[in-house]
Amino acid sequence: MQLKPVLILIFFLLLPNLPDASTTEKPLLGFTEKQAAAQQALETKFDSLLKSSNLKEWMQRLSARPHHTGSPYGKENAQFIAELFRSWGYQTEIEEFKVLFPTPRTRLLEMEAPTRYQTELSEPEVKEDHTSGQKNEQLPTYNAYSIDGDVTGELVYVNYGVPKDYDELKLRGVDVRGKIVIARYGESWRGVKPKVAAEHGAIGCIIYSDPQNDGYYQGPVYPEGGYRNENGVQRGSVLDFTEHDGDPLTPFIPATENAKRIPREKSNAITKIPVLPISSKDALPLLRTLSGPVAPESWRGSLPISYRIGPGPAKVHLKLEFNWDLATIRDVIARMPGAEFPDQWIIRGNHHDAWVNGATDPISGLVALLEEARVVAELAKTGWKPKRTLIYAAWDGEEQGLLGSTEWVEAHRDELQQKAVAYLNSDSNSRGFLSVEGSQTLEKFMNQVSRDVEDPQKKISIQDRSRAYLILQGTPEDKKDARNREDLRVRAAGSGSDYTPFLQHAGIASLNIGFGGEEEYGQYHSIYDSFDHYIRYMDPSFEYGLALAKTGGRCMLRLANAEVVPFEFKGFADNITQYVKSLQDLTDKMREETEDRNKSIQDKTYEAYFDPTKTYITPESQGTVPHLNFSPLQNAAERLEKSANEYQKAYKDRMDQSGEVPEKLITDLNAILTHTERALTRKEGLPGRLWFTHQIYAPGVYTGYEAKPLPSISEAIEQRNWKLAEDQILVVAQTLDRFTSEVERAKAILQDGKEKK
Amino acid sequence: MQLKPVLILIFFLLLPNLPDASTTEKPLLGFTEKQAAAQQALETKFDSLLKSSNLKEWMQRLSARPHHTGSPYGKENAQFIAELFRSWGYQTEIEEFKVLFPTPRTRLLEMEAPTRYQTELSEPEVKEDHTSGQKNEQLPTYNAYSIDGDVTGELVYVNYGVPKDYDELKLRGVDVRGKIVIARYGESWRGVKPKVAAEHGAIGCIIYSDPQNDGYYQGPVYPEGGYRNENGVQRGSVLDFTEHDGDPLTPFIPATENAKRIPREKSNAITKIPVLPISSKDALPLLRTLSGPVAPESWRGSLPISYRIGPGPAKVHLKLEFNWDLATIRDVIARMPGAEFPDQWIIRGNHHDAWVNGATDPISGLVALLEEARVVAELAKTGWKPKRTLIYAAWDGEEQGLLGSTEWVEAHRDELQQKAVAYLNSDSNSRGFLSVEGSQTLEKFMNQVSRDVEDPQKKISIQDRSRAYLILQGTPEDKKDARNREDLRVRAAGSGSDYTPFLQHAGIASLNIGFGGEEEYGQYHSIYDSFDHYIRYMDPSFEYGLALAKTGGRCMLRLANAEVVPFEFKGFADNITQYVKSLQDLTDKMREETEDRNKSIQDKTYEAYFDPTKTYITPESQGTVPHLNFSPLQNAAERLEKSANEYQKAYKDRMDQSGEVPEKLITDLNAILTHTERALTRKEGLPGRLWFTHQIYAPGVYTGYEAKPLPSISEAIEQRNWKLAEDQILVVAQTLDRFTSEVERAKAILQDGKEKK
Repeated sequence: MQLKPVLILIFFLLLPNLPDASTTEKPLLGFTEKQAAAQQALETKFDSLLKSSNLKEWMQRLSARPHHTGSPYGKENAQFIAELFRSWGYQTEIEEFKVLFPTPRTRLLEMEAPTRYQTELSEPEVKEDHTSGQKNEQLPTYNAYSIDGDVTGELVYVNYGVPKDYDELKLRGVDVRGKIVIARYGESWRGVKPKVAAEHGAIGCIIYSDPQNDGYYQGPVYPEGGYRNENGVQRGSVLDFTEHDGDPLTPFIPATENAKRIPREKSNAITKIPVLPISSKDALPLLRTLSGPVAPESWRGSLPISYRIGPGPAKVHLKLEFNWDLATIRDVIARMPGAEFPDQWIIRGNHHDAWVNGATDPISGLVALLEEARVVAELAKTGWKPKRTLIYAAWDGEEQGLLGSTEWVEAHRDELQQKAVAYLNSDSNSRGFLSVEGSQTLEKFMNQVSRDVEDPQKKISIQDRSRAYLILQGTPEDKKDARNREDLRVRAAGSGSDYTPFLQHAGIASLNIGFGGEEEYGQYHSIYDSFDHYIRYMDPSFEYGLALAKTGGRCMLRLANAEVVPFEFKGFADNITQYVKSLQDLTDKMREETEDRNKSIQDKTYEAYFDPTKTYITPESQGTVPHLNFSPLQNAAERLEKSANEYQKAYKDRMDQSGEVPEKLITDLNAILTHTERALTRKEGLPGRLWFTHQIYAPGVYTGYEAKPLPSISEAIEQRNWKLAEDQILVVAQTLDRFTSEVERAKAILQDGKEKK
Repeated sequence: MQLKPVLILIFFLLLPNLPDASTTEKPLLGFTEKQAAAQQALETKFDSLLKSSNLKEWMQRLSARPHHTGSPYGKENAQFIAELFRSWGYQTEIEEFKVLFPTPRTRLLEMEAPTRYQTELSEPEVKEDHTSGQKNEQLPTYNAYSIDGDVTGELVYVNYGVPKDYDELKLRGVDVRGKIVIARYGESWRGVKPKVAAEHGAIGCIIYSDPQNDGYYQGPVYPEGGYRNENGVQRGSVLDFTEHDGDPLTPFIPATENAKRIPREKSNAITKIPVLPISSKDALPLLRTLSGPVAPESWRGSLPISYRIGPGPAKVHLKLEFNWDLATIRDVIARMPGAEFPDQWIIRGNHHDAWVNGATDPISGLVALLEEARVVAELAKTGWKPKRTLIYAAWDGEEQGLLGSTEWVEAHRDELQQKAVAYLNSDSNSRGFLSVEGSQTLEKFMNQVSRDVEDPQKKISIQDRSRAYLILQGTPEDKKDARNREDLRVRAAGSGSDYTPFLQHAGIASLNIGFGGEEEYGQYHSIYDSFDHYIRYMDPSFEYGLALAKTGGRCMLRLANAEVVPFEFKGFADNITQYVKSLQDLTDKMREETEDRNKSIQDKTYEAYFDPTKTYITPESQGTVPHLNFSPLQNAAERLEKSANEYQKAYKDRMDQSGEVPEKLITDLNAILTHTERALTRKEGLPGRLWFTHQIYAPGVYTGYEAKPLPSISEAIEQRNWKLAEDQILVVAQTLDRFTSEVERAKAILQDGKEKK
């Protein structure tokens, strides 16, 4: 009889992380307790119907031949996908657009001096890879939307080719005007490299894959391992997305057959200088030949050479000509109308076009989406119907610049802004950890989903796995959050896949999900992104493909069935507060660094330090960084936080009661919640970036993929435009206040139902 | 008339760093104002007599043939150096010792599986290098004091081969027992690598030069540049210095002809497993053949391979046999007796032995010492005589383990401890920035010297150049100090040159000085450390050789002539306070990391994170890091700081008055000051390291070269021996108190002269 307390004690010692009662009950945001139980039963059934063999079979089918935008097999794939959807009962159509898609006619890169070297510009067949020999259908290695050009000049190595690299060049007295630059892939989105090079006066740009970034430095190379071998080349678009995404000839409007197109010469989206990607094998003879200053330590890659900057003596000739044709893109759109709210749309998308065979990018994500859609349809045959309309999309033309999704959003913008509840995106997928980026109003929702999906390798939740990753591999802040914060953060979205037109142009709450981190990823945009590669180095058993289907499927089923659409604002408010703090820290750091640098300039510390046998230019002193008035933003963030807390309390008080909630209240509440994300947009867009209307999330102008939270302010600060920064602090504060008043309206509805105010 | 104030304003704007009046007056610690003026005139004359052509000529002569310990040309060099000293009027003798110095009889390293590779183990002649072909006299590439051995085993890559690398291996389930390890040079002193390997059960150790550390990654390689080419091998001693320096057969006693030697088998200083250094060219086929886990990112060097850990499939056979002979070493000792205080010795040394031709190491420092000595002798012919005795030493056997200096110190220990005021060391020298390490009681003195020597390239003081370096290249703490602290810090001394027996064994205040940072240093301990290399990549015009002569010469002349020997304690006290703070920070950081790791172990975070397709072992949890009682040390540091301040005030009050200071007071004061450093030693030595008596400075057991300030405490903390740490806090506090009471005695003498207490 005395044993019991001791046992309990031991029990707690052994299970220190015993989930608390609330987690065990698994509440579902937007569902009553009873509905939640039904929903969870539905999800269990959903899981049980998923088959990994489908993923494998479809991947093999869809990646069997090169299927880039406008290719014969791309068209076949679109038809195959549409046929699948139709066979499952979806209302399916293929929506076509006509977009500018240049393909190469001439590609020449040779070193003319001090010795001659003719680059190969090709990726050879690998006998272990059954699709690598499909030479007739493979797109050559090139960067789409490079301008035509024929230039000859001395070569300069510019590291990643981002603005700060040019500061280092300036410090060393190296000027790229009239030169051809060679940059390595990485750090920024590739299109930033020729853009910045042109801004500095370069006449041509070469981009190569350094083995440090995805080659032998990372691990064994293909086919012995999954990393990029010396022949692998990263194709890719270099379209300038600063002003808008999508077809460069039809900004803001759908690229229909008869759309009014701007002349190609008028487009700001095409590069100003010719640009070509090459392999590390082709880069080695060029880089080896450079003399001049030894590159700074952080610039040095893993080729067996001294990385030197030049200019020259390597002199190269770059000649590029393209067929500037329009290509037809084919978006596959499959609908399952909602039984109760057909005009509330839940959209799920993944692109289907690739650069070559694209087993990983994008088929690994697409096959999970397809299996998810198949099982949803199967459930719909058993009596269950979604309350809201489900739309499954397979986008074309993503690789060129999110063309398929953007043109579709532009074609249906008004209707989407009226009806879309949320957009859920995926793209490449592999073995490892879930990552989520996008709208933080869905943070709580997403955490409830990740809590309920099991990691296929570990038999713990995918959320707990992510948490472990953040604790052991994250930044100190990540670690702190992962240990102490209830929900894992949804990261701010930059760009790089099809959520951008939905979220950042149309203001539709969006999430991008995918697994990864345990693969050997060196095939990106090369002919070696193949089925053979995928099943050896990415997700051999497709178990993470299934995990993606489970995750995406839960998202869709919950969004489709929830009584109240599952938006929540506390997590969002907390992220906003963090971003405001980051901007203050950024400004303080810039102030400190500027003062420090100016002091060293004034004290002639640079002159005292520099090696006189080498060229060094003292940097120019910069104006003092003022203390900006962040208070409007701080106050707006605090108002948001307060409202978010009150909304949560009101929601809890109203919805967690056992009695029925009036339908009218639910309808009114959903009408507001569905549109809250739109309140974060301004039709004036970001400064100089009209198309990007979202005031909280945007890709950085000089980062490309990476998110810039509160972009108008952060970029103004980085550009030292203090006036603009203070203006934008006001604009964003007003935007947040508009959002907060929507939260207040939602709260009032919840409270009104209970008590008159 | 109104113009003047404006002009003054402009003047200050243009010269923001105008030296203040006290700097302009250039006071000299230990000198009255009048004496200081005479001293500065002497130094100006000294400078004017220095000739760089001598440095060049002697370097060419001394590095003309290989001159390692025991070699014919080493003997010739000793005689040549002695003859120079004699010709200048020094009382010169060559003091001989007989030391154990093994040379290789058999060197074999071959890969037996999965393919065969026979290593070359040789450095080829380079036609641009005129001494690189002297094959008959070059010592082969080897590590001296490796044990004989004939072992075969699978290979494991262990990064730098320091203890934390073995933690990483353990995490990956890799055991080196029965294996041969391959480590890269760098991070630790080389002898640590086979020591740690043996402690973990390895049966052999290979050390190679990765191009990342001093090869093409750093810059162009020899002969196109100065960095190590693929054939360069770093020779070097692997004698275990944990217990003592010097001849392994005669610890604590001089290795005279008839000294009582311990049997070689009884020496703990010889490695436990065979060890051999190789080139990157020989390492590449071995490393390329390893499979197993991909090495952690910080382990990866610059060879064009995936760095993998193994074990195997590379299986290597290592066979080493040595001639275990005694060699005669020849220290050249040259004296100029002091005119007033012949029994107060100022000692200056630089070794003369090399691994091969050794133009940089050690001849670049030695020729500066010789020129310094020549001009000092020349001055002595013009009427001036040093008050104190000057001793110039050219040590032999430094490369094997500071043999020449150590045996000499052991031979003369009692007399040295009675008479030596200070020891000033140099070794390799090149273009760049002054660095100083050693006794911080000489920090003020050294800063006054570096303030008065002009940088040959910049025409500012070498101190201002160092300051600029610290501001632009130092750690945040360095930068803060360089901007705000009056004196640049003298860094704590580790080991790696001949100051160790003086400072850390005999307790004689010592400094190690040298220039560098702008050279291309990849010739270390190879046949390419030659005159041809030196004049292309190190200090082509010998202007930094002259700067070293000026710096060393000023030190010697000031120490020789000062009325009061120029020790000062405020800077020392400040450094001690900083070290105490660092130990607290170290303990706090260990506590935090331990707690964090234990929490992740307890929560099964590691299991949740690990990739299940790879082997990972969860680390073992460690005991909590207690809060140590640092208060005895903090209180001792505060007492020291207080006394140091009071001493400085008393000194200023007494010595800066215009009147005469009684000779008796000076004599008494000097008698104390000369011996203060001895108060920092304990005859019991450091725990387990009897020979190392200094309680403030010692090389780390597992770092080798790098200093461990307050070594007994810091190593106890790192070994998590909390009991020992607290014991040693008391011991060091007592030692500091003993030192402080010496400072108090000195202060009392200064005060007694003025007022009765």
